[in-house]
Amino acid sequence: MSVAEARVNEDIEAVMRDMAGAAREAVRALAVAPSEAKANALRAAADALRTDNAALLDANARDLEEARRRELGGAMLDRLALDPRRIEAMANGLDEIAALPDPVGDVMAEWMRPNGLRIARVRVPLGVIGIIYESRPNVTADAGALCLKAGNAAILRGGSESFHSSRAILTALRHGLARAKLPEAAIQLVPTRDRAAVGAMLKMAELIDIIVPRGGKSLIERVRRESRIPVIAHLEGICHTYVDGEADLDTARKVVLNAKMRRTGVCGATETLLIDRRIAARAVAPILEDLAAAGCEIRGDAATRALFPAALVATEADWTTEYLEAIISVRVVDGVDGAIEHINRFGSHHTDAIVTCDGAVAERFLDRVDSAIVLHNASTQFADGGEFGMGAEIGISTGRLHARGPVGVEQLTTFKYVVRGDGQVRP
Amino acid sequence: MSVAEARVNEDIEAVMRDMAGAAREAVRALAVAPSEAKANALRAAADALRTDNAALLDANARDLEEARRRELGGAMLDRLALDPRRIEAMANGLDEIAALPDPVGDVMAEWMRPNGLRIARVRVPLGVIGIIYESRPNVTADAGALCLKAGNAAILRGGSESFHSSRAILTALRHGLARAKLPEAAIQLVPTRDRAAVGAMLKMAELIDIIVPRGGKSLIERVRRESRIPVIAHLEGICHTYVDGEADLDTARKVVLNAKMRRTGVCGATETLLIDRRIAARAVAPILEDLAAAGCEIRGDAATRALFPAALVATEADWTTEYLEAIISVRVVDGVDGAIEHINRFGSHHTDAIVTCDGAVAERFLDRVDSAIVLHNASTQFADGGEFGMGAEIGISTGRLHARGPVGVEQLTTFKYVVRGDGQVRP
Repeated sequence: MSVAEARVNEDIEAVMRDMAGAAREAVRALAVAPSEAKANALRAAADALRTDNAALLDANARDLEEARRRELGGAMLDRLALDPRRIEAMANGLDEIAALPDPVGDVMAEWMRPNGLRIARVRVPLGVIGIIYESRPNVTADAGALCLKAGNAAILRGGSESFHSSRAILTALRHGLARAKLPEAAIQLVPTRDRAAVGAMLKMAELIDIIVPRGGKSLIERVRRESRIPVIAHLEGICHTYVDGEADLDTARKVVLNAKMRRTGVCGATETLLIDRRIAARAVAPILEDLAAAGCEIRGDAATRALFPAALVATEADWTTEYLEAIISVRVVDGVDGAIEHINRFGSHHTDAIVTCDGAVAERFLDRVDSAIVLHNASTQFADGGEFGMGAEIGISTGRLHARGPVGVEQLTTFKYVVRGDGQVRP
Repeated sequence: MSVAEARVNEDIEAVMRDMAGAAREAVRALAVAPSEAKANALRAAADALRTDNAALLDANARDLEEARRRELGGAMLDRLALDPRRIEAMANGLDEIAALPDPVGDVMAEWMRPNGLRIARVRVPLGVIGIIYESRPNVTADAGALCLKAGNAAILRGGSESFHSSRAILTALRHGLARAKLPEAAIQLVPTRDRAAVGAMLKMAELIDIIVPRGGKSLIERVRRESRIPVIAHLEGICHTYVDGEADLDTARKVVLNAKMRRTGVCGATETLLIDRRIAARAVAPILEDLAAAGCEIRGDAATRALFPAALVATEADWTTEYLEAIISVRVVDGVDGAIEHINRFGSHHTDAIVTCDGAVAERFLDRVDSAIVLHNASTQFADGGEFGMGAEIGISTGRLHARGPVGVEQLTTFKYVVRGDGQVRP
């Protein structure tokens, strides 16, 4: 721990309060900042990352060394590690966010009242956003940039493993802000690894408008339990693919294999496969053989195992488990209503797909499955802001309020009503 | 706590849990209920109120008698009292909500991706909504109807003063639901006046999706403090009217008088008047004379009192007080920037107006005042869902998330992404 860090730890509450106060000040300027200034800041930050990646690589080496000393696992080290290629990807991410349309000032709706009042609903920034995240250093760049683009001030609390890397990335972001003459407090990083900083943040409802946690289930649950500030959270992705009796079998095989195995560690990966009893005899074996051949462990209910004896036994707990690994649970259900029933009961309202050639059955599924994203004849792995054309995202919200599904730049705004009159009074 | 009390509280938890469970079941049917069924239910409920108002008047008489016994004030008794005219107004309110367009199923946006995926953002109900309110019995009808219209299940916790009236209104709503073959658990009323019921509701984050408190500041604060469920709240309306140096004086007099005095007890009533120093010598006296003549108490800063000696002294506390009475605080400020500074510092981000003939100054105010509703040359008393053309409302949200400003039928919905493909997989 550095001397500066030790000093911060002495009075975390005061430090956090000062940061949030500075963020509130910054928001006033950001809310009316020209789109070009915000875009310029992001492009200058991207350039700074590219031209001075030595400082960032040094900082990252320190993080990696500490991680090795703490004997963190290989997967963690891989998530943490930066190299020139990853830094270039991070810089490109900033450039892409810079190129997105500025949501602030968008007139979302406009109408005239009989009394002549003209009413417009206009997008404005949300305000001060606290983001609490784990490990991957690139989140520092992404999250800071998305908040800035939408005119918000960001208070970032990165993972303790990426502490030094995040500080180096912040330096680049700050450089961009200064170049664009925007307040440096627009993007701040909590200067301590002490977890008390998170507790202090979650209490500052007067200064912080919204908290976005991004990380594992225990982090999300802690934040939801402690926060006095509204939270936009991605809890978990227990995603399903349902193969209907009227599915085209080739499509089903291709979609299921992709939905489960393209990447198993993402929230949109299918965790449970539901198969219509009417097609089970024909579909279970080929679909599960594809998965097994790709290295996937299969856990089935009795009907599944009768058709695919190599499957392990699925227990009730499997229906509510987000594996994030090459494991799939499989259940034979009675048609689309059986699938809807299972998904609404055991799922996490994240992303669910149906494979069928019957349009009416598909619409029934899309209507009745209560999830942020529902798909017909497509892989659940499309659950991603970039794939939706929304540009970068800060996560996928499994909540119902404000933002549902991918949280991109637009979802980091709110709106105000602007009413223009010529002296109207209310009778 | 006595053993008996403990048992009661235990029962309340179970009762509330059963209600919320029934509401969750109802939501499934409501989410896919035809628009006509929902409208028919509301119209049948309106008819039931009209044709059997004797039962409701009896119930209301019981409430009034209990209120008199508890020596509640005249204003409270007036808010509580129903008569055939008020019942007719309530029934008309239900008919008006029935006639609103159904928001559920609205395609808010739709686009095609380069890979052929068609993505639509479609409005869906929020889910189970808990509404906690005080005194006025008509809220039972309005809130229940608004929730139903948007496909939500409502758990209503009315004021203890209107307990019997609310039950009679619920009977009419239930009659409408039954006639339209919708689940009766779509609208439920907490069957006890025990305040523990509120505590139990606020903990059921797994069953209730959102809490809407509607009442005084202490109720709102209790709900915000205790709730584990997201809250859409109207905290308070510390609204301002700013008279700019370039204002037309006649317009300013008319708008200010209306903004303060049309009705003083509504959240959109102006509580603080800000006057540009450049026009103070000309504007302070006539504007304040109008207000004084209408019976308004005036509390001014030193500059105001120099020009209008009859004003009482305004203290710092006046800038943060929602009077809801015929009292106004008045301050002379330095132009539009002084007004913006004052409003963002002391206001409640509810509704604020500028009176000016200078378009650029007006735009500066509309841009920089961080409130749910900002008006140019119009009375702050237009802060109302009906006046905005949104139909009935359940309140005006002073929060920034999800719903800001009037909370009407649309604000009681969320959305899902519906993605239609033909076998796409993610590369």
